Amino acid sequence: MEKFNASIAYDQRMWDADIRGSKAYVKALERAKLVSTDEMEQILHGMDQISDEWSRGVFVIKPGDEDIHTANERRLKELIGAPAGKLHTGRSRNDQVVTDMRLWLRSAISTLTDNALQLITTMVERAAAEIEVLFPGYTHMQRAQPIRWSHWILSHAVALSRDVERLQELKKRVNVLPLGRYALNALVRPLGFFISVNSMDATGQRDFVAEFLFWASLCLTHLSKMAEDLILYSTKEFSFIKLSDAYSTGSSLMPQKKNADSLELIRSKAGRAFGRCAGFMMTLKSLPSTYNKDLQEDKEAMFDCYDNVQAVLQVTTGVMSTLKINQTVMEAALSPDMLATDLAYYLVRKGVPFREAHGLSGKAVFTAESKNIALNQLTVEDLTGISPLFGSDVSSVWDYRSSVEQYSAPGGTAKSSVAAQVEHLRNWLKKHAQ
Amino acid sequence: MEKFNASIAYDQRMWDADIRGSKAYVKALERAKLVSTDEMEQILHGMDQISDEWSRGVFVIKPGDEDIHTANERRLKELIGAPAGKLHTGRSRNDQVVTDMRLWLRSAISTLTDNALQLITTMVERAAAEIEVLFPGYTHMQRAQPIRWSHWILSHAVALSRDVERLQELKKRVNVLPLGRYALNALVRPLGFFISVNSMDATGQRDFVAEFLFWASLCLTHLSKMAEDLILYSTKEFSFIKLSDAYSTGSSLMPQKKNADSLELIRSKAGRAFGRCAGFMMTLKSLPSTYNKDLQEDKEAMFDCYDNVQAVLQVTTGVMSTLKINQTVMEAALSPDMLATDLAYYLVRKGVPFREAHGLSGKAVFTAESKNIALNQLTVEDLTGISPLFGSDVSSVWDYRSSVEQYSAPGGTAKSSVAAQVEHLRNWLKKHAQ
Amino acid sequence: MEKFNASIAYDQRMWDADIRGSKAYVKALERAKLVSTDEMEQILHGMDQISDEWSRGVFVIKPGDEDIHTANERRLKELIGAPAGKLHTGRSRNDQVVTDMRLWLRSAISTLTDNALQLITTMVERAAAEIEVLFPGYTHMQRAQPIRWSHWILSHAVALSRDVERLQELKKRVNVLPLGRYALNALVRPLGFFISVNSMDATGQRDFVAEFLFWASLCLTHLSKMAEDLILYSTKEFSFIKLSDAYSTGSSLMPQKKNADSLELIRSKAGRAFGRCAGFMMTLKSLPSTYNKDLQEDKEAMFDCYDNVQAVLQVTTGVMSTLKINQTVMEAALSPDMLATDLAYYLVRKGVPFREAHGLSGKAVFTAESKNIALNQLTVEDLTGISPLFGSDVSSVWDYRSSVEQYSAPGGTAKSSVAAQVEHLRNWLKKHAQ
Amino acid sequence: MEKFNASIAYDQRMWDADIRGSKAYVKALERAKLVSTDEMEQILHGMDQISDEWSRGVFVIKPGDEDIHTANERRLKELIGAPAGKLHTGRSRNDQVVTDMRLWLRSAISTLTDNALQLITTMVERAAAEIEVLFPGYTHMQRAQPIRWSHWILSHAVALSRDVERLQELKKRVNVLPLGRYALNALVRPLGFFISVNSMDATGQRDFVAEFLFWASLCLTHLSKMAEDLILYSTKEFSFIKLSDAYSTGSSLMPQKKNADSLELIRSKAGRAFGRCAGFMMTLKSLPSTYNKDLQEDKEAMFDCYDNVQAVLQVTTGVMSTLKINQTVMEAALSPDMLATDLAYYLVRKGVPFREAHGLSGKAVFTAESKNIALNQLTVEDLTGISPLFGSDVSSVWDYRSSVEQYSAPGGTAKSSVAAQVEHLRNWLKKHAQ
Repeated sequence: MEKFNASIAYDQRMWDADIRGSKAYVKALERAKLVSTDEMEQILHGMDQISDEWSRGVFVIKPGDEDIHTANERRLKELIGAPAGKLHTGRSRNDQVVTDMRLWLRSAISTLTDNALQLITTMVERAAAEIEVLFPGYTHMQRAQPIRWSHWILSHAVALSRDVERLQELKKRVNVLPLGRYALNALVRPLGFFISVNSMDATGQRDFVAEFLFWASLCLTHLSKMAEDLILYSTKEFSFIKLSDAYSTGSSLMPQKKNADSLELIRSKAGRAFGRCAGFMMTLKSLPSTYNKDLQEDKEAMFDCYDNVQAVLQVTTGVMSTLKINQTVMEAALSPDMLATDLAYYLVRKGVPFREAHGLSGKAVFTAESKNIALNQLTVEDLTGISPLFGSDVSSVWDYRSSVEQYSAPGGTAKSSVAAQVEHLRNWLKKHAQ
Repeated sequence: MEKFNASIAYDQRMWDADIRGSKAYVKALERAKLVSTDEMEQILHGMDQISDEWSRGVFVIKPGDEDIHTANERRLKELIGAPAGKLHTGRSRNDQVVTDMRLWLRSAISTLTDNALQLITTMVERAAAEIEVLFPGYTHMQRAQPIRWSHWILSHAVALSRDVERLQELKKRVNVLPLGRYALNALVRPLGFFISVNSMDATGQRDFVAEFLFWASLCLTHLSKMAEDLILYSTKEFSFIKLSDAYSTGSSLMPQKKNADSLELIRSKAGRAFGRCAGFMMTLKSLPSTYNKDLQEDKEAMFDCYDNVQAVLQVTTGVMSTLKINQTVMEAALSPDMLATDLAYYLVRKGVPFREAHGLSGKAVFTAESKNIALNQLTVEDLTGISPLFGSDVSSVWDYRSSVEQYSAPGGTAKSSVAAQVEHLRNWLKKHAQ
Repeated sequence: MEKFNASIAYDQRMWDADIRGSKAYVKALERAKLVSTDEMEQILHGMDQISDEWSRGVFVIKPGDEDIHTANERRLKELIGAPAGKLHTGRSRNDQVVTDMRLWLRSAISTLTDNALQLITTMVERAAAEIEVLFPGYTHMQRAQPIRWSHWILSHAVALSRDVERLQELKKRVNVLPLGRYALNALVRPLGFFISVNSMDATGQRDFVAEFLFWASLCLTHLSKMAEDLILYSTKEFSFIKLSDAYSTGSSLMPQKKNADSLELIRSKAGRAFGRCAGFMMTLKSLPSTYNKDLQEDKEAMFDCYDNVQAVLQVTTGVMSTLKINQTVMEAALSPDMLATDLAYYLVRKGVPFREAHGLSGKAVFTAESKNIALNQLTVEDLTGISPLFGSDVSSVWDYRSSVEQYSAPGGTAKSSVAAQVEHLRNWLKKHAQ
Repeated sequence: MEKFNASIAYDQRMWDADIRGSKAYVKALERAKLVSTDEMEQILHGMDQISDEWSRGVFVIKPGDEDIHTANERRLKELIGAPAGKLHTGRSRNDQVVTDMRLWLRSAISTLTDNALQLITTMVERAAAEIEVLFPGYTHMQRAQPIRWSHWILSHAVALSRDVERLQELKKRVNVLPLGRYALNALVRPLGFFISVNSMDATGQRDFVAEFLFWASLCLTHLSKMAEDLILYSTKEFSFIKLSDAYSTGSSLMPQKKNADSLELIRSKAGRAFGRCAGFMMTLKSLPSTYNKDLQEDKEAMFDCYDNVQAVLQVTTGVMSTLKINQTVMEAALSPDMLATDLAYYLVRKGVPFREAHGLSGKAVFTAESKNIALNQLTVEDLTGISPLFGSDVSSVWDYRSSVEQYSAPGGTAKSSVAAQVEHLRNWLKKHAQ
């Protein structure tokens, strides 16, 4: 039962947050005249010693230290004796736990933001550098229309930029002091917190944890989507990209194999994080108000999601900064049938309603297939058999680069549009640099 | 297979958004000279007719109408003939679907915001009216310390106010025009949208749906927590509250029973909504970029969560505005042992470190239990046997109302603190009224 | 509130089970002398009339019919008057609901079993017919070793056969009469049920629903895996298979496109079903004993999973019986490096420990890559430079068909092994035919 | 990346399974003449040494030991040199991983079965010992009808007995040798496995893990339900039970508190386990065939669920064998209105149809409430005013013990029925003892 109850095995990770919180707390107690200046000094000094022990890896956990709070308090008593007992005046364990978690998560969010910004930077600069490379855009995993490789990169970078924005919104809600009912206002300022509205809500809610777990799930879902694309692009059949050796692994059985293990691990973590989110939401569901021991599930879930998102962001940065593209293969994968929509627009420009033009272009595709030739190998006669509006100027349609250049609206595939996306994100990055 | 593929059974619900989107689209086409003014007028007129048919419930879905977009387009063609074929110039079905969903959800969010504000208003005004009522605060479902009933109400109202704030943040991200690559800038303004950054991301991402589903889950988890408390309070054993008949149900077997069915239904919906979120996240996970038919799962999940949150908010408003409290029973449930913390603070005020005072108060509790008397029935002799610092002034501790009044910091249980919470939320409500 | 409370919108689907249950119940009442033979006859006759109304689609649901049980009981009273009131002697609504669900699900399981057996039959016979076709086996989506196409088909058929076995196990647990405390033993036999052990457990547990939802999730996960493979195989880049037109869809924008919508829908349903499972498990979690209204979530989840599994099994049967393979492309995708493991075994047969042989074969792969030639184009000199044990007999390694034939153990890729799998499954099918 | 890739931190836990598997494998290799008898002896001896090192906690993990298989193989090479390289002839890492997992889980299932049987035994014997104690049965958390305390205990024991049965079914599917394509039949027998049908399925499926995770979720959901009841029963307001001190915890703030932490932890674990299940199912969903690195998520989920179920079963056994019931309070909680159903049956026995009798009894309840007296304090006059069939013999209804004794069908609340349940479960326990 003791083992079942104890959390020290994992919550010791918050030692620094716990000490920072206690130091701020004792200062507030002193200002409220609940401890003397001298007692405060002793406690602060003791806390610094404990901090030093943790930093150097020499803090000794003893039997009975069921959590990080007990452990630090026990050690403080050993170091400074009686005054240690005053530190917890007006503070319940539940207040302390949730304050520590908020302090810890606030720092964690800063780190994750840095990691995400670094990945986005890597992607944006790669997009800028490889803007000339074309390859097939896919929908339903079928070749759709030619796009720029940079357009693909930026589609994922934009999703990640939303993740960063969501994380900043969430940070506001993490950054709230959970004032228990004994609340000392004096605490708010030194810890840089906003203040909570209702003490029951403050100590009993874990919304910020649930939000973080879901944030991690959605962010990792974005990265799983990108990984899925890259796994596909690195198959022999696509051969668009090649991972660097550091991010591939061989097979214990098959000497010729290079597996994209890094990408598969990235893909897998979305499930894991969402599992943590699902588990914690289920734990929360139908709990009554205020603290119940069930909430102890909050910390492992939070740590695990943090560790996984951080690792995934770093590994993805590594993958994206080292993979090599095969421009020749990418451009060779473009085929004239991918210009069938452009062929329809050729007719639209001559006054045919789009739905009808779409049908006529479809006929051209079918004719080419029947003749077993490429769409652009149809003669003008073949085409005028389908619609008299086709003329010899149809040859202008058969150019992948012009096709891509047509879409010059914001967010489009034209070089100017993609360059504008790059600029947009560079500015966004500057604005969000911490 | 056709039945498996079709979505008209549920997506017809977006008929109004679909028509609004198409009307804005054709105006943009006209500005871009892709349809003539005359064609635009015909399309607008036709769309108004279709809208009228839907409003009056006379629109006839025909075989082949696989989704709301096809149905409206088919009907438009019947009504106005050839020009109907021009409406889809430069617009893919995928662009249209996601535009409709964003328009629909934007309205849905307004409705839910109204519903939530109404519930919060009900709760805040009830808290203001019943501020004098005391009852036991619980942690771990065990009696902890006396609190105001209003403090309990407000703890849940505050959680709901965060839900509203989150919903507004999310609304910003819903309110983005998913410009496909054929994007017509002209569309942005009439629909009141922000613009998207990258066309692949714009049409292939469903973050706004995933966020909404999780939002619904977390909001319903808050309401499941409140329902759990109220179910408990309405048991015979607690007897703190009584639901109005409209929100209770009898038993088909046991004539004496009144079941809090409304609260149980509220409690159950958190699971359902989270299931939708889990299902959709799993569907998203490891999908490749851009549109894949799997995304068709987005709509039923979105509608179902909307319907459930809306129903739950309304039913909860009904429950909270009609339940009766039993003040006598509530106050009778307060017992002297709930003042043991105050007894410890009595000693703290006489200079005893909190940890030691906690131990001495615990001894007093134990002594009273051994003697089988209430804590406040211990004599001064009994108490001085535990600590010489106890004096006759200890009698001041045994007052529930004074106990509650001690906690006058922001968020506390004192009357002034609770009144300040009421004011805070009233102001917040004014600020968020739509 | 009434709307929130009512379940008739979806539970009317159990009308037949409800009537069958009531007919059996009234017979038991008669045997227990709680209704007279005459009353029983009237009730049975009334029930048959109601059944007939439902069958013909003319049963009219009236306001106040909150669920199927109330609706049928109300109608019975209209039809036969007073004796209708005796039908519910000793039977609570809760007993009746769960009995109906068990009757309904028992039939549903039979249907799903038939659907699954039909799909497995289709797959096994296809495997038998196309046993000669070789193509690349993949691990990590990278070409690994040559296998038979039939081996791939059977790997999925075997997974489905386990699903059927699990479903039969689950059926045993569905097939239990939930005897409430008023239990009439006489009921057990006519309904073909086993008997429950404890009345509280019998009416308050929904294990059989939770199990079914998870069963559906796992079964659909198998089908999503198969769909994922097939989507890949149907890309332009792989081009191993082509879906029949009935299972593909065109694009509203791009005339050349054929999307594997059927496969994407199959893939998506695993998420949906698991979402239902997750939602229901969360609803169950931490509910107290016996019936709580939260359990009303059970039916929609059960129906939705049933509908989706059934549709997916049928569509998959359609896909698998109509898709065309492209044997030429499949066999052309085999490449000599996929025989590198065989090259290692060549050395093992000459006494080299496997780990060392693996390293030497890897060197050969590297040498071929450096020379930009295929592995089988290395000369005997190239190879003896790597290991003196290589001789001219190494040429025997370069045969895909022999490679596949090596693995003749049970479950292997040799023709005999695959044929044995076919036989095994044919026998299994005979044994499980209903 | 290396750290991201490595699994040794957690999979070292399978060291024993890994060694047992390798020892069986080398024996099969020898029988197949792929290693000499002498080499086999060396390998077996080396493996025994390694096993000894793990047992004594002196095995040293070195950099590069990415998983338990690599670690043991590396150590074997250090100990016996060259012959170590032969151990992996015809065995891929993927085969080995899944064999180890199956061996490990088979043992784990035995342990869990023991733990569950011990808990069920504790519950059954407690039910036998306390069969005379009555208390309120609840539905919707409202007092329903009197039941035996033992009936409540057994309702949970029966659910657990189904969990054991499900676990045995699952065990059959764990107990299958995942023959990779190089399969050596000789392996099957020594490890006591059944044989797999298809090698691709055998190495790439993780159904047995998914099933185990769901099994754990459902089992823990049962225990969360029981915990929820007990938490309720241990509130001050119910006061039916008192946990022993070993399973309660005090408050760091409130000296008088005793929190049922053990029960809250039990309740919380259902969420955690289901989160693991959800996470792994999401990881599986839409993975292509065969091994992908994503599957590496299988082990931590499996270990975590095992650890939690085991701890919960043991703690629950502790709680159930040490809690004290308060028979006086339990029986005092019975109230005459809980006999209203019996009052209705009194009329049924006089020929009134049940629905009508239910209505008349309801009127009696209402009359008593209006007069503010207990139901059994209504005079015969009061009652005959409601129905002339009431007579003075109605007094026989007002006896809780007789009420309970009425339900003597299997699974009922009569002493004979509950005793029969005890006997049934005692026999079941004997049959399932391992």
